[in-house]
Amino acid sequence: MNPDESHLARAVELARAGSQRGDGGPFGAVIVGADGKVIAEGWNRVVVDHDPSAHAEIVAIRAACAALQVFHLSGVTLYASSEPCPMCLAAACWARIPRLVYANSRTEAAAIGFCDDELYDQLRPDCGQRNIILEHRPLAGSLEPMQAWADDPGRTAY
Amino acid sequence: MNPDESHLARAVELARAGSQRGDGGPFGAVIVGADGKVIAEGWNRVVVDHDPSAHAEIVAIRAACAALQVFHLSGVTLYASSEPCPMCLAAACWARIPRLVYANSRTEAAAIGFCDDELYDQLRPDCGQRNIILEHRPLAGSLEPMQAWADDPGRTAY
Repeated sequence: MNPDESHLARAVELARAGSQRGDGGPFGAVIVGADGKVIAEGWNRVVVDHDPSAHAEIVAIRAACAALQVFHLSGVTLYASSEPCPMCLAAACWARIPRLVYANSRTEAAAIGFCDDELYDQLRPDCGQRNIILEHRPLAGSLEPMQAWADDPGRTAY
Repeated sequence: MNPDESHLARAVELARAGSQRGDGGPFGAVIVGADGKVIAEGWNRVVVDHDPSAHAEIVAIRAACAALQVFHLSGVTLYASSEPCPMCLAAACWARIPRLVYANSRTEAAAIGFCDDELYDQLRPDCGQRNIILEHRPLAGSLEPMQAWADDPGRTAY
């Protein structure tokens, strides 16, 4: 196995072990630094943690950021047992992860009930039938904290 | 103020207080149950927690789920000071939140540097120029944990 395959195989093993324990769905992830060393691992913990955001990739991103005390993971590769859902792909973007490698496709995940295509559709600005009601209610003064942040030279951008 | 405005005003206040402390960006969120009672609050903690996923909405979702020991929040309303980014909107969908009300639009957030439109574009399946390299590498045996999960009558779907 080359390093990519070896890290992917580890992500799949985390998926197997975590889901067998009942922690959550069958998904695993590994984050590897530019030097080839593993920074963090994660697996789906939605059920055991009562956390709908605890997908394997986000669990690994949180662990890697905690280990390095950063909120950007430039230079790493995120290995995932399956193609990321839009929440995890967006989290990887926020974390500035430059490369993501996955083994199972979203079509294969859909075959066991994880319909990411539907969720990707929900996020299209022109989505016709949203499952969630989105209401825009402008509020007097609501822009003030945003402007104060923008005007603060000491702010930390992320 | 009606209840919607009052909860939105609280989300804006959380945005102000959190960003003034330097916890993260100027964003707040409140989750309210069907009975009108507040279940949880959150604000952006990306900087202080070293967690790129710690947006106000996700912080509030995690807190509400922890408080209720659930991973689905059916019946609640999520109030957010600003229109959710795709990561948070997807998290709200995973949490089965039926209604989300926000005060500031994504256009207003973009004016201070939070360009969610760009991130929404990144999540389109037909996105032309991705900031993140996505590589599909099929791996022998990688479907086994998925199939084992699907075949397990005791699995917990989420």
